[in-house]
Amino acid sequence: MGDFSEFRRLDEKSLVEYVRTVPCLGSMVGDNLEVKEVGDGNLNFVYIVVGSSGSFVLKQALPYVRTRGESWKMTRERIYFEASSLKEHGRWCGEHVPQVYHFDRTMSVIAMRYLEPPHMVLRKGLIAAVEYPLLAHHMSDYMSRTLFFNSILYHSTTHHKLGVAEYCGNVEMCRLTEQVVFSDPYRESPFNRWTSPYLDDEAESIRRDNALKLEVAELKSKFIEQAQSLIHGDLHTGSIMVTPESTQVIDSEFAFYGPMGYDIGAFLGNLILAFFAQDGHADEHNNRKAYKEWILKTIEESWNLSQKKFIALWDEHKDGPGEAYLPTIYNNHELWHLAQNKYMTELFHDSLGFGAAKMIRRIFGVAHVEDFESISDPSKRAACERRALELAKFLLKERRELVSIIEVISAIGQIE
Amino acid sequence: MGDFSEFRRLDEKSLVEYVRTVPCLGSMVGDNLEVKEVGDGNLNFVYIVVGSSGSFVLKQALPYVRTRGESWKMTRERIYFEASSLKEHGRWCGEHVPQVYHFDRTMSVIAMRYLEPPHMVLRKGLIAAVEYPLLAHHMSDYMSRTLFFNSILYHSTTHHKLGVAEYCGNVEMCRLTEQVVFSDPYRESPFNRWTSPYLDDEAESIRRDNALKLEVAELKSKFIEQAQSLIHGDLHTGSIMVTPESTQVIDSEFAFYGPMGYDIGAFLGNLILAFFAQDGHADEHNNRKAYKEWILKTIEESWNLSQKKFIALWDEHKDGPGEAYLPTIYNNHELWHLAQNKYMTELFHDSLGFGAAKMIRRIFGVAHVEDFESISDPSKRAACERRALELAKFLLKERRELVSIIEVISAIGQIE
Repeated sequence: MGDFSEFRRLDEKSLVEYVRTVPCLGSMVGDNLEVKEVGDGNLNFVYIVVGSSGSFVLKQALPYVRTRGESWKMTRERIYFEASSLKEHGRWCGEHVPQVYHFDRTMSVIAMRYLEPPHMVLRKGLIAAVEYPLLAHHMSDYMSRTLFFNSILYHSTTHHKLGVAEYCGNVEMCRLTEQVVFSDPYRESPFNRWTSPYLDDEAESIRRDNALKLEVAELKSKFIEQAQSLIHGDLHTGSIMVTPESTQVIDSEFAFYGPMGYDIGAFLGNLILAFFAQDGHADEHNNRKAYKEWILKTIEESWNLSQKKFIALWDEHKDGPGEAYLPTIYNNHELWHLAQNKYMTELFHDSLGFGAAKMIRRIFGVAHVEDFESISDPSKRAACERRALELAKFLLKERRELVSIIEVISAIGQIE
Repeated sequence: MGDFSEFRRLDEKSLVEYVRTVPCLGSMVGDNLEVKEVGDGNLNFVYIVVGSSGSFVLKQALPYVRTRGESWKMTRERIYFEASSLKEHGRWCGEHVPQVYHFDRTMSVIAMRYLEPPHMVLRKGLIAAVEYPLLAHHMSDYMSRTLFFNSILYHSTTHHKLGVAEYCGNVEMCRLTEQVVFSDPYRESPFNRWTSPYLDDEAESIRRDNALKLEVAELKSKFIEQAQSLIHGDLHTGSIMVTPESTQVIDSEFAFYGPMGYDIGAFLGNLILAFFAQDGHADEHNNRKAYKEWILKTIEESWNLSQKKFIALWDEHKDGPGEAYLPTIYNNHELWHLAQNKYMTELFHDSLGFGAAKMIRRIFGVAHVEDFESISDPSKRAACERRALELAKFLLKERRELVSIIEVISAIGQIE
């Protein structure tokens, strides 16, 4: 048996030895283990482990970013926050968060449910024009429940601040977001790239857009300062595994107590990117018109259902431990409604602002999205990206004037 | 020698024994110790210790609120946060924060500079119509420096979140504020009291004022969620000791990472209460007219100087470790100015909102202020309180329309 009392990097062989030292894992999978490295992890090493009686995924964090090599250091502790947040989010929304079977802080290892085929990454499904009729329903469940149940609308301040304090420890991951989402796209940085030369003017124009940069400053401070809920922190369409029946949110190593709108915006913003990429994927077999309509409907329903479910949870738990809106104060129907309305309006504006910032960083920052990258003709890709950028700028600057998601859908239609 | 390895309550006799076990204190005061219990501490026991070669104040926290007796429990750990924040604030503004000589977490004891006569509590000076020509200058130094240097305008996020995590531990004190400032005045509570029957209608009207309660909800959430800086947390005129030449801020047991406007608002709001109380103190010797003018000037200068100094610090440290506004992004004069303007406008509105909430709680909540309480004629007192309330309601509801402190001064004048 191997010695796993200190951190060491696993490989397919030592992983089998490791599994034998963890009774719950060993008994779950049985004998004749087959181990396969998945190979598409961005930050971590991910293995599928299948045995005679079961399977799981094992994820190990190394002290650097997998796809960037050992020179891009990153704390292994991120996987502790991933395991903790998966468990916490799973507690409130077990339907859409894979079960964690085992966590080993020393070895930086999580073993969790294997999301077997036909599960695939949502982003790839969106590129392939696959409709997921339950996606808006599932993601609104996930967002409304994880965000509501980890906020002061549900918890006492005492409980809340315990969580806030713990997740302050994930600051290294937060700082990465601060840099790549809120800073680099708005200045010259060796990490930035874009579809050049087509978008050279646009890249320069966002570095010169005072109004845009003022909005981004406000969002950046909010991201750092506002401990509103335990958010996923990286809720783009690459962090979601789907089948037509199942929606599973993974990869929460960026989790911390931050603004709820950052999660909702990440999801909506990446759906909007998927929308604008469709023209780059259209061909004689599929002009993507119907699929674009489905994406728009999904954006609309994702917000509307999230809002509706969030308010329903709030109503249901208004006599619970949360102390932000005490029923003895918000004690008439009109006021209760006004308070919820005001709260949801601000959340809507935050979501649009953060969503727009996430869109811009995927066009000009270090990490791009396959939705656009897989469009091989750069002029065609740039045309798609330019439309997405136009919408993002509009949302960042004008979001406070918008009152419903329909207006966002209209704005998308106008840019189209 | 006594045994102080476990917590025990000190008295004048055991305190002398205790001092002898702490070499730095013993050598500071020398022989022939005289110990006097101050007797006006609200939460804690406070002793003045004077010896042949020096003096200090010794403060001990008990696990309950001194003035409420053993039934009102309160964690002794508050004094750890008081000592930590005094040291941190003293580091940035040593001129206006008394030096901490010694802290003993086990015994819940702080020994700190004795603020010898003629130092007196600012609130008592305001009641006695004493002018402090340097007050606005000193308090703007204190507020701008302590708030700026503990924010992400100056510190890296890494540093900031270490502090945030630590002060989450002071949640019990935060919850007390949440209850007595943001909740109780807006509902029926056995802790509430007001000048009855004169203000009975007003007490009921604020419990029925939907617009007011919406504003208070927003401020309460901001108080809990926004970790903007290490704030004092209780910066009313009773937490400030003054002479005409010296201004010293004490009693920071409510310190935590919260919105800056809560400190600025507490100070300004209590000056406004002092202003409206003057008519209750006027007599044939002093009609208080000139003194009221001095208070208004002090309110105006306190904000204007705080703003000016805060911006000067920001300019001076723009290339420092703070990452919120990177010079590579906010890289032109106009944008830099716009960003600062936007930030200060929001801080102004926060300060007015929190200040107004602090005023209301002093008229209808559990803890009143001597400014009003010392007006013995209840009808006269109620008249003063009613005017303060009118201003507070105006500020809570209309603050976002105001752009300068002059408009606040005008509004005070109109209510007069």
